[in-house]
Parts: sequence; structure tokens; C-alpha cells
Amino acid sequence: MAAELIDGKKTAELIDAKAGEAAGAIARIIGRKPGLAVVLIGDDPASDVYVRNKVKRATAAGLHSVEIRKPASLTTDEALAIVDRLNADPAIDGILVQMPLPDHIDTNAVIGRIDPDKDVDGLTPVSAGRLLLGERGLRPCTPAGCVLLAERAVGDLTGKYVVVVGRSILVGKPAALLFLEKNATVTLAHSRTKDLPALCRQADILVAAVGRPGLVKGDWVKPGACVIDVGINRIDAPERGAGKTRLVGDVDFDAAKETAGSITPVPGGVGPMTIAMLLVNTVTAASHREGLEAPGQL
Amino acid sequence: MAAELIDGKKTAELIDAKAGEAAGAIARIIGRKPGLAVVLIGDDPASDVYVRNKVKRATAAGLHSVEIRKPASLTTDEALAIVDRLNADPAIDGILVQMPLPDHIDTNAVIGRIDPDKDVDGLTPVSAGRLLLGERGLRPCTPAGCVLLAERAVGDLTGKYVVVVGRSILVGKPAALLFLEKNATVTLAHSRTKDLPALCRQADILVAAVGRPGLVKGDWVKPGACVIDVGINRIDAPERGAGKTRLVGDVDFDAAKETAGSITPVPGGVGPMTIAMLLVNTVTAASHREGLEAPGQL
Repeated sequence: MAAELIDGKKTAELIDAKAGEAAGAIARIIGRKPGLAVVLIGDDPASDVYVRNKVKRATAAGLHSVEIRKPASLTTDEALAIVDRLNADPAIDGILVQMPLPDHIDTNAVIGRIDPDKDVDGLTPVSAGRLLLGERGLRPCTPAGCVLLAERAVGDLTGKYVVVVGRSILVGKPAALLFLEKNATVTLAHSRTKDLPALCRQADILVAAVGRPGLVKGDWVKPGACVIDVGINRIDAPERGAGKTRLVGDVDFDAAKETAGSITPVPGGVGPMTIAMLLVNTVTAASHREGLEAPGQL
Repeated sequence: MAAELIDGKKTAELIDAKAGEAAGAIARIIGRKPGLAVVLIGDDPASDVYVRNKVKRATAAGLHSVEIRKPASLTTDEALAIVDRLNADPAIDGILVQMPLPDHIDTNAVIGRIDPDKDVDGLTPVSAGRLLLGERGLRPCTPAGCVLLAERAVGDLTGKYVVVVGRSILVGKPAALLFLEKNATVTLAHSRTKDLPALCRQADILVAAVGRPGLVKGDWVKPGACVIDVGINRIDAPERGAGKTRLVGDVDFDAAKETAGSITPVPGGVGPMTIAMLLVNTVTAASHREGLEAPGQL
């Protein structure tokens, strides 16, 4: 039996469009579009692609978007000054500083300086605290995208048993809390977990967020389970020619898809959802900042 | 087989004494004792007892401690002004505002105003964020006490399977993250969890933090497991005479102690640990604020 493929690209397009509609509705009330500022420091080629995509999709969705590019020689103080300026700019609702920053810049200082109400990446300590405390705030994009995909595949998550493999601050831990907010029962597993395969085999929803290609084997998946693969690993692909590579997830997709009820491919699964949730966060931030009701789940 | 009784009172006395030693060592370096301010607003009798105990134990451990009592008529602005003054007071390392506050006071505003570096209750959004992000900070006292008792009963928690029943922001969620920091595999269960008894039966360490007397039955406990009972429930005890009451936990103690390897009683288990961890947090806050190495696990 082949699993249903969870099409993250198509879902992301849908969310982009809905975020765009919500942005338009807000703009008609407040007289301006929700605004996103993306800051890129240095010339990392991967970061360059990410930033381009973020700005492109934000613009396509009808958001006001600003791209700020600075050389790798920027100092921490100069980076902080940029954040201060964006914090104070009434036309900007969301600030995203593209990671990683050059080594000499104090990353925690820069992230911590972002006004939590504009923290559309959900990475500041205050945003993390609001998530843990269940308070209103902006949630990290990638884990929020995982929950949304799972919910679309499975329906109501109440009482579902979720196993999250990987306890990173970017994905694993916030994903666990977001699934908990949906009334799922959640286990956080990691490299020190005993008998990980047996634990995974209990999961109604299995989230792999470790960054190790093919870690999760086909027989770790309970028949009919929903598998969300957050890993994006580039591996050698000599079958495609000398020196060629390809992207794979943390799950042995070919094996797992025979057992799972639904599964995200890599690429085209969780990946595209991150920017979609960024647009949603920008619209949400604009709503909150302007004292409007935020659009519900998009 | 009767379980080993985990003596929270004795452990708390030990921790109080070690916190006192550490406070003395710090005082010899910085020329002042670590300082704790406890703020009580209104005249709730239970809060009155808690505050007295906190100040008494802090003083007994050799900390500088200040008790601030204000009438229930205090306004939010006046409460904020007290917090501001304590934030600015160099002799105060820890600020604890006793909960609950009178209804007309904006609790979130008051808690959120506490300097996170003095937030010895670990309740501000920034402290919660630091916990989630694994950054240096002050951890909530009751869950920290649970982890310490489990570690003393079981030893190294790496790879242990912990089930936390209850997902409150005061205990369940922070406890899950603190056990995770100890490399345990952690499941957060709650009222919407399916087949809670079967899940609990898998736990090496079972933490009950729901507030429902006797919720966890004896046959929910795996033979040899460590049971940490956070519940403190007052129930009628007609067997003690008309109108009498007694305190019980969330675990059916008499049944569970036959199966568990170790178990906390109620009272005398987790309860006394809360103030001990408050003293530890005050000493830790003083160390961090003065640029000293914090004392390790006490």
C-alpha cells in the first residue's frame, strides 16, 4: 500500500494565497500592506537563495517587503542599529535576520534585539517564552508548518500520539509544544533515547527532525501513520553522474511510504511551508500591532 | 515490595544548607549576601504562610531577605513601581511576587516587569524562553525540584523514559524540558491523552502534576519505577473527625508504593523542594549578576 503524498508545495501555495488575501483585507482597514523586512549579512550563497525566495513570495502575496543586504564586514553594533531602525519603522511588521550570521557577529545579541512583536521567525527568547507559556505570540515557522501539514493530512490532532525525533531549538522542541497545543500527546526523542525504533512504531504522527539522512527506517513506521520529514540532507548521487548530489530527508522515504498512511517528500514537503508560515506570521504580526483580530488558521 | 520513600523534607534541608554555604562563599567575594525580596499583596492566608516560610528559610540559610507586604487595594501601577524599585536595587538578586494576585491587578504585567536576571520564580516569558532555548537562566522552582528528587532517587537520567502527566505552565511543561535537559526521553500527557494508564505503565519516571486526588492508580506504575507526585490536594478526612481534612497527592500512594521503586509522599515530597530551589535560584542569580561562576548542582 502506498502512502498518500503530502504535497507541501501545493499547500504552501494555498497558504501563500490565503495570507495574501488576509493581507489585502488588513490593508483595506489600516491603509497600508503588512510589511516584512529581510536582512541578509554577508554573501553565503544558500542564504542568498533563501532571502530571494522569501522576498519574492512575500511580494507575490501582496505584502510590502524590504530586502536589506550588508557586507560580511558589518559589525555587531551596525547589525543592532539595523534592527533598532526596523523595530522603530511603523511600516515594518515583521523582521527576519537570515541565519547564519558571520562568525564575528553576536548572533544572540542581534536576535534578542528584535522586537518580539515583529519576530516573525519566532526565535527570540520572548517568543520562545510565549510559546512555552501558551501566550499570544509569533511561532517558529518550520515547526508551525509541520503541524499544519499533519493537521491537513490527519484531521483533528486531539489525542493523537506524536513522536518528535530531534530536540533542536529550531524544530524539535517548538514542534513538540505546538503539537501539544493541538491536544496531541507528545514524546520528544533524541540520540540518547533507548530503543528509538520501538518508540517510533507507536506514533500516529512521526516527525523526524535530526538532520541524518535515512535515519528513520521503513519498519519504524506504524502502518497508516503520518510521517513528517523535516530533514533536508544533501548526499552524493553517483547514479546521477559523477559529482552529482541530491536532497534526501531523515526518513528512508522509499521504504516508509509502503507503510505510512501519509508522508511528506523531500524536497517538496515541509521545506516550502517555512516561507508560507513566515507570510502568515507577518500578517498576524500586522494584525496584532494594529489591534485587529488576527486571521485564524489559514 | 514497599518502595523507597523519597524524603523531600530531608533533601530540601540539605539543599537549603548547601545554598547557604554557596551564599556565604559568594558573600566573602562580593562583600554582601545574596538578596531575596518576597512581595505579598493582599491577605490570602495560604499566601501568608508561603511567604513567611520563604523568608524564614532564606534567612536561616544566611541570605539577605526582604519581605514586602501591601494591602489588597494596591493598584497595578503601584505593584509595577515596587517591581521597578526592586529591579534597580543592587542588594536584591531575586524577586518573588507571591501568586495569586488580587483580581484587579494585571498579573502578566507585574510578572513581565520582573528583570529576568532576578526572576527566581522562573515565571517571566524571558525565563521561559531561556528554558526552551536551553540558554542560561533561572528555572521554575517546583519542576526543578522534581528533577532533582528523581535524579537523587534514580541516578543519571540519560535515556530514562519520563512520562509527565499534566501540561501546566507552572509544572508540566517546564518539567518536561528540564528532564529533557538531563537527556531523558520525555512524554507530555494530559486529559486528552488516550489510554493514559498504559502510557504511564511504560514510564521509568512518572511525574503526576494534574491536581486531581488519586488520579494515578497503583496499577499505572511500572514495577520499580520512580514516582514523583506534584499534586497537593486537600480532601475531606471524616476518619479524622467531623470536618477534618488531609492533604493527598495525584497518586494513590498506598497502592503505588507497593509497585514503585521509589515514591514521593504528600506532604513531605516535592512540596518542601520548591523553597529549596528558590534559595538555589537566588544564589545562582547573585552569581550571574556579579559575574561569578554559579555553584553547580547543589
